[in-house]
Amino acid sequence: WFIPVSRGLASLKKPASLFDPLDTFTERHIGPDDAEVAKMLETVGYKTMDDFINATVPSKIRITVNGISNDSIKPFSESQLKAKAKALGDQNKMFKSFIGMGYHCAVVPPVIQRNIFENPAWYTQYTPYQPEISQGRLESLVNFQTMVSSLTAMDIANASMLDEATAAAEGMVMAFVSGHFKKKTFVVDSAVLPQTIAVLQTRAKGFGIRIIVGNVDSLLQSENAKDICGVLVQYPDVNGTIRDFSQVAEKIHSTGGILVAATDLLALTQLKPPGEWGADVVVGNTARFGVPTGYGGPHAAFFAVKENLKRKMPGRLVGRSRDAEGKPAYRLSLQTREQHIRREKATSNICTSQALLANMAAMYAVYHGPQGLLRIADKVHGFTQVFVNTVSGFGYELVNSSFFDTVTIDVTPVLANTELLHKKALDAGINLRIIDEKHVGATFDESVTPQELVSLINVFASAASASPISLADLTEPKQQSIPESMKRTSPFLPHPVFNKHHSETEMLRYINHLASKDLSLAHAMIPLGSCTMKLNSTSSMIPLSWPQYGNIHPFAPYDQVQGYHAVIKELEDYLCQITGFYAASLQPNSGAAGEYTGLCVIRAYHESRGEGHRDICLIPLSAHGTNPASAAMAGLKVVAVKVHSDGNLDLEDLRAKAEKHKDNLAAFMITYPSTFGVFESGVQDACKIIHDNGGQVYLDGANLNAQIGLTNPATCGGDVCHMNLHKTFAIPHGGGGPGVGPICVAEHLAPFLPSHPAMPVKSKDAIDAVSAAPFGSASINLISWAYIKMLGGKGLVDASKIALLNANYMAARLSSHYTLRYKNENGRVAHELLIDLAEFDKAAGLKVADFAKRLQDYGFHPPTCSWPIQTCMLIEPTESETLEEIDRFCDAMIQIRKEAEDIITGKQPKDNNLLKNAPHPISVMTLPGEKWTRPYTREEAAYPLPWLHEKKFWPTVSRLDDAYGDLNLICDCPSVEELASA
Amino acid sequence: WFIPVSRGLASLKKPASLFDPLDTFTERHIGPDDAEVAKMLETVGYKTMDDFINATVPSKIRITVNGISNDSIKPFSESQLKAKAKALGDQNKMFKSFIGMGYHCAVVPPVIQRNIFENPAWYTQYTPYQPEISQGRLESLVNFQTMVSSLTAMDIANASMLDEATAAAEGMVMAFVSGHFKKKTFVVDSAVLPQTIAVLQTRAKGFGIRIIVGNVDSLLQSENAKDICGVLVQYPDVNGTIRDFSQVAEKIHSTGGILVAATDLLALTQLKPPGEWGADVVVGNTARFGVPTGYGGPHAAFFAVKENLKRKMPGRLVGRSRDAEGKPAYRLSLQTREQHIRREKATSNICTSQALLANMAAMYAVYHGPQGLLRIADKVHGFTQVFVNTVSGFGYELVNSSFFDTVTIDVTPVLANTELLHKKALDAGINLRIIDEKHVGATFDESVTPQELVSLINVFASAASASPISLADLTEPKQQSIPESMKRTSPFLPHPVFNKHHSETEMLRYINHLASKDLSLAHAMIPLGSCTMKLNSTSSMIPLSWPQYGNIHPFAPYDQVQGYHAVIKELEDYLCQITGFYAASLQPNSGAAGEYTGLCVIRAYHESRGEGHRDICLIPLSAHGTNPASAAMAGLKVVAVKVHSDGNLDLEDLRAKAEKHKDNLAAFMITYPSTFGVFESGVQDACKIIHDNGGQVYLDGANLNAQIGLTNPATCGGDVCHMNLHKTFAIPHGGGGPGVGPICVAEHLAPFLPSHPAMPVKSKDAIDAVSAAPFGSASINLISWAYIKMLGGKGLVDASKIALLNANYMAARLSSHYTLRYKNENGRVAHELLIDLAEFDKAAGLKVADFAKRLQDYGFHPPTCSWPIQTCMLIEPTESETLEEIDRFCDAMIQIRKEAEDIITGKQPKDNNLLKNAPHPISVMTLPGEKWTRPYTREEAAYPLPWLHEKKFWPTVSRLDDAYGDLNLICDCPSVEELASA
Ligand SMILES: Cc1ncc(COP(=O)(O)O)c(C=O)c1O
Ligand SMILES: Cc1ncc(COP(=O)(O)O)c(C=O)c1O
Ligand SMILES: O=C([O-])O
Repeated sequence: WFIPVSRGLASLKKPASLFDPLDTFTERHIGPDDAEVAKMLETVGYKTMDDFINATVPSKIRITVNGISNDSIKPFSESQLKAKAKALGDQNKMFKSFIGMGYHCAVVPPVIQRNIFENPAWYTQYTPYQPEISQGRLESLVNFQTMVSSLTAMDIANASMLDEATAAAEGMVMAFVSGHFKKKTFVVDSAVLPQTIAVLQTRAKGFGIRIIVGNVDSLLQSENAKDICGVLVQYPDVNGTIRDFSQVAEKIHSTGGILVAATDLLALTQLKPPGEWGADVVVGNTARFGVPTGYGGPHAAFFAVKENLKRKMPGRLVGRSRDAEGKPAYRLSLQTREQHIRREKATSNICTSQALLANMAAMYAVYHGPQGLLRIADKVHGFTQVFVNTVSGFGYELVNSSFFDTVTIDVTPVLANTELLHKKALDAGINLRIIDEKHVGATFDESVTPQELVSLINVFASAASASPISLADLTEPKQQSIPESMKRTSPFLPHPVFNKHHSETEMLRYINHLASKDLSLAHAMIPLGSCTMKLNSTSSMIPLSWPQYGNIHPFAPYDQVQGYHAVIKELEDYLCQITGFYAASLQPNSGAAGEYTGLCVIRAYHESRGEGHRDICLIPLSAHGTNPASAAMAGLKVVAVKVHSDGNLDLEDLRAKAEKHKDNLAAFMITYPSTFGVFESGVQDACKIIHDNGGQVYLDGANLNAQIGLTNPATCGGDVCHMNLHKTFAIPHGGGGPGVGPICVAEHLAPFLPSHPAMPVKSKDAIDAVSAAPFGSASINLISWAYIKMLGGKGLVDASKIALLNANYMAARLSSHYTLRYKNENGRVAHELLIDLAEFDKAAGLKVADFAKRLQDYGFHPPTCSWPIQTCMLIEPTESETLEEIDRFCDAMIQIRKEAEDIITGKQPKDNNLLKNAPHPISVMTLPGEKWTRPYTREEAAYPLPWLHEKKFWPTVSRLDDAYGDLNLICDCPSVEELASA
Repeated sequence: WFIPVSRGLASLKKPASLFDPLDTFTERHIGPDDAEVAKMLETVGYKTMDDFINATVPSKIRITVNGISNDSIKPFSESQLKAKAKALGDQNKMFKSFIGMGYHCAVVPPVIQRNIFENPAWYTQYTPYQPEISQGRLESLVNFQTMVSSLTAMDIANASMLDEATAAAEGMVMAFVSGHFKKKTFVVDSAVLPQTIAVLQTRAKGFGIRIIVGNVDSLLQSENAKDICGVLVQYPDVNGTIRDFSQVAEKIHSTGGILVAATDLLALTQLKPPGEWGADVVVGNTARFGVPTGYGGPHAAFFAVKENLKRKMPGRLVGRSRDAEGKPAYRLSLQTREQHIRREKATSNICTSQALLANMAAMYAVYHGPQGLLRIADKVHGFTQVFVNTVSGFGYELVNSSFFDTVTIDVTPVLANTELLHKKALDAGINLRIIDEKHVGATFDESVTPQELVSLINVFASAASASPISLADLTEPKQQSIPESMKRTSPFLPHPVFNKHHSETEMLRYINHLASKDLSLAHAMIPLGSCTMKLNSTSSMIPLSWPQYGNIHPFAPYDQVQGYHAVIKELEDYLCQITGFYAASLQPNSGAAGEYTGLCVIRAYHESRGEGHRDICLIPLSAHGTNPASAAMAGLKVVAVKVHSDGNLDLEDLRAKAEKHKDNLAAFMITYPSTFGVFESGVQDACKIIHDNGGQVYLDGANLNAQIGLTNPATCGGDVCHMNLHKTFAIPHGGGGPGVGPICVAEHLAPFLPSHPAMPVKSKDAIDAVSAAPFGSASINLISWAYIKMLGGKGLVDASKIALLNANYMAARLSSHYTLRYKNENGRVAHELLIDLAEFDKAAGLKVADFAKRLQDYGFHPPTCSWPIQTCMLIEPTESETLEEIDRFCDAMIQIRKEAEDIITGKQPKDNNLLKNAPHPISVMTLPGEKWTRPYTREEAAYPLPWLHEKKFWPTVSRLDDAYGDLNLICDCPSVEELASA
């Protein structure tokens, strides 16, 4: 009968005044209450929190207490926040957008909305590095991959990319790499989405690729074929035309180049897929598959390739392998953690991607199936056709005779220019695509109702002084405008999973069944070092479900998005306050994208001073893999800086290298507190060395949770930093994404922050776009905005303090059982701790993975494994975990230590023991009695500690066989035949 | 590698027109697609659906196809429904209500809102009759019971009652029963809530209780003490006064009567609890503990008693018992299914109650804990005090010098009457309690913000021509208005569960952990006969979360609730169409309440014709236990009617009894199709017999799902019927409630439908209220309204047809393995089937429960057991289950049949086998190898069929020991001491 006692009786305090709100967030967000804090301080050896913080954070870098406070960031209670979010949401005008350009208003199936988008069991999961407790979302991601490869007719697809523009950029780089970095020209058709072209421009710079934009057919004639590594086309193109690029494919293939096609999955239900006309790489986004537009994001983009390119794909790839019992099971393929981001010659830095949105899109395909998708496509095309037919009758001229859902209309037969039409559209609450003086564009999607179609048509009627039509006048078109030769003839999505869960009950059960296989924050602590898996509060998530935020097109006129801009502005201000910097950009969609953006900004700064040659980037050996990868992508040469055996940066090595490269020194990248989990006291000295040698300091803010209100990147000496809003600022990890990686910069770098084609004002020095949408994954910024507002200044600082205390308490408890690798001169770690398991390997061949898998048997998600040091575990509890949960985790670790001792002493064999055989799924428990040949009991395997009897999360498969999976790469879901023969 | 193939490739059909919506509901609601339907028809032996229906539903009672169609009920797609619900919601004006009278605006903690209220894993559960797969909600209900008994200081509390008024009525009846039906007077204090008094009046009639309303103190002096069975008081009373009823208690106890106290749990955090001043029964509602007001309901009421009354409590009572392994586990106590509704001398008919809302309220207490509740109470009291202090300054006079959250104000020192004040309040968007010309009332709750307090005060200022105050003028009061002698001194909620889950993370994990123990529709079919566990669609649930519906006071003026009334009116119309009747009342909160209401209406009808003496009610022996119980409560004498061995009503017996009682025949109650799962062809004849003998026919509509558009209660010959909206019309069961049991009546009965004190118009013949709120559980009516609108006429009829087909297909598959008990002359069952397991008891001592518990091992919720026949299972698949799921269930049943065969033939021992030992939780699987002494393998226990390897729901405990639990009644959660000693 187990109910442990945690928070004391007095955990909810009386507010200072009767008129203060009671639904304050800090006490719900922070795990330990006052009594627990007192106990932890005692264990760690301090009388007061101040003493503890003083011993932990170097005094040199401390900021004054007044830095972040309730005066600077006023706390909102949960209900106050809701009211505020509502009021701002109401300032967004929900116009009907026919803008298109890669963004469509999606219809989210309610069963997916409620059970994935609004379900913490899905959205609080982490990237599935631990496949045994992640089979549910791995299966769903395989559905995503299958959906993409089937619709595009490509051999293999990943899961997933940040957005279509960056996916296209990865395609360009793949072409460049395939041309062995020698063919420097990349041809881009001018009818590719403008935001994609902008992002390509940015990306091309770092690699020294030359982009030529124009008509592909003529460019392939006119340009030097030998120098062209690849071509990018849009299918259908931005104006709606369905072009046949098979000649382009032949041409580029004839000189060994690569054809990259950006496309639209819904259109591919009707159109001959790129895989059938010669594309080598196919990219696009899946937002219209049931993901709210959200003023630009987040949503999942895809990346699909032909067989020969599969081992070069960026991003995450899920494959089928088998477990220790030989049963099929899913896992991330071709990549242990960050392995795909190779330090040297990295061409991609993608880490956090868009897992949650990929799952939503995949589930949309599961729910609709091929027939359902087809009928949606039929409707979309049919509405477009009706529109064209009717407005042609008013005298407007259709420019593109072939189309799926997008048309370009020449207004000049009727009107002098487009002005009146746009005005009338706005009056009717409609946004049209602005093309030029003579042309407007209109794109249709699933959400358009017949009534809205009529309203749109009547805008055109009115501008042409024709009489308005009514619903009854709508007639079904007889023709289709998809050229016969470009029609799809091949089947798609024949796999059982897309052909059975079509009733809501079945869909619900499928979603629920997959969720039941996955451990999330709804189950237990996920103490992943560097990932900051803290509470993702319901209050901060709720506004995302509101149409006032969900249904906004990213290119909607600014005056329609005042609510969004209020949120964006306030969030930028808060982030500047917290980092000590001057300006911010929310455009980057992930931490790694933030790194890349920051480095591009630094390069632009140097260039503006005539120092464009500065191209050396110093990076400590302990850095996260994305750091050198981002540097390489920004065209920087990475020079490694040593780290002392005490975990601190080798300042002498740094100085030597900075001085050596002083003429070409561009930047230094440093993570603070370090990836070893320590506040180094020499950080300011390090930064000074860099500045003295003409470089700029990039601070990787992944560990910002340790800093808030205690120190900040500016004080540490940085010039720019990114933040992972999906770490420090409580955006849920969503099983591997979405993320937001904004950057903050010092004043001198502000002019260089990224611009975007859809931004009305643009600094002349600004770098080009880094994301497809001007404000990146705009909708989820709401979460961090809410998080900051609800904690307020004091709550934010308290959260950082408790994050530090929780980690130090854990260090105190674990250090008598394990080797704590690094601490500062006072014996303190920062917000995470590294324990080294090397001794166990030596003594008994026990690896980090054996400890990690065994932790699964205790119901915990293992900490970060073998990073930043191969033999270590990096543990980060965050402030949201209570003392009880932390003790539970420590108890588990200590018990495993005992189990290891039995192996070391020979009580248990080295090759057949609780750790090597971990995890133990139920299927192993039910082996018939006589088959149980293990040298321990089932009870010891499953219930090593008493509380597991009451609450235990069961892994659903045995340990995965990584090698087998990488050798036998199978990345789609089982077919009918496979199932039949199984 | 198991993924079964279900729906065919073409399951989503193209709509008839391009302009028809694609998100049509019918194809998502109904499980089988066309191909599956064809296959099932073939198995059952029919070429067409029409042939099948003709063989199933007697032709005599068929209604024309035009009865229910898309013309009469126009289908709305899911998004159209959402738009409609939104538009109507916007017609409800969200005034701030200070009306009080038992209803307060609740603040729902977001983590509870999202993870219980909006979580199908909680709301689609069934009543926990199967404890082994229901430990989660059973634990939560014990928390509810503990919360109530601790706050009220009573010995034991149940979970739960429908509303405060009916709970008070049950208290009155308990007093009457305790007085051995001899003391006929029940004294009600005039300051009890008026709606409670109205419901008592109704209820008193049936029992022949005489209610006297007045000042309790004087009534106890003036009335004949010997005839008084009990007293009802309100604490604090309706006007806000905190009265000391200890003298009343002494007085009534001195003559052996009972003191019933209606109270408010939040007030009890501050006030001396009723258990400490002599109450024997304490009732009230828990809505302010985080349950949206919803224009009246649903919410959970409570019922707590002293030790000596505990075995007489109505409603559901959860207790701690132990399982077959001797481990503690929860279960419903003192009641096998419906046992508490005894046919003879029933005094309560409560079946469906308010489990989901009880869980929400309990979780609210878990989240806030004693300290959190106290600070909420402090705020509420403090605001009330500030209000009083300020408006007294304007000259208004406080009537009640003691109060917790409610004050009565005499306006006459300032104003001639209250008119101006009410007008100004309405202008400010505020509702005050209307008392009389001179007095207004105001009640405060947790949701009131300081700004709203200021607005309220300024209404009073303005009416008094005083200058308005501002936020800055608010000052904390120095005094409290709770009399010293009435202050609470005893602690409450010391149990660990109320003192640990105070961070959102911990709360989320607790909710998620409990949910993980419970099987719901999110896991598998719940084929409970008579319960119609069909899809509860997300689209129909979403509007419940909107404040436009959630935050409406049940006594708000009609012009503020136009949206609600549009929904109510439309729903009533639909129900009349579907039943063939003339008028409807949505007031009853459950099916049983509907029965009771219908019978009261029949009695009133007879009375209106001078035939008030008619008091005989004929009820077939096969009827649900609530039927005779409701009849008894309505003052009717139950006469049982025989049933033939073929399952049909014995018409001769009916005729004989009807004729015998013809002078006193009041009613006949019949369930159609019968509880045996057959459409009897003689139903019209039976009704004619009744009518010929002066009786009225009550049709129990629990099985209406079999009828829609094929026949209807009016055509069958009924005069009145109830519907279980929580069965046929898709309100989720919520783990045992809420429910809605509206009645529809023929024209001659319409004038007698229930009234309510808060209804402006009242038919002179109307019976008094049957529920506390005028439209019962108003908010959840939205679900049925949405369900009907989204299916439209055709979808509704199709749903009934498929419900019949699914059951008949199941019958066809199972009948070669089991004894199908009843079918019609064509061999057809209705929408459910009865299989008889008597032979297994004879052959091998195997009981129904053994089959049921074994089904749990297959991941299914067992069907209804031992009702309506002890040796049977009643199985109802509903239309929402796919062929695949039905086949899975049939496969499981057939496999169990094989397992039974092994026991019959002696292959397996009779006392130690797969059935007798079922269910097998994981804990049994992990018994160390040497302890596994069973004559079958673990694999046979856990995975008897291959698909269980992929998907299996595990019971969390072994079979419950019922006898032990009933002997050792423990109905609260473990205390600190208990846990410490465990
Ligand atoms: C130290 C550090 N830097 C950068 C990143 C990259 O961030 P993202 O995954 O958002 O791209 C991470 C992610 O774990 C990290 O831990
Ligand atoms: C035939 C029948 N009548 C009446 C009822 C009572 O309905 P409720 O539980 O809503 O009170 C039930 C409930 O299962 C039933 O099956
Ligand atoms: O209790 C019943 O729901 O039948």
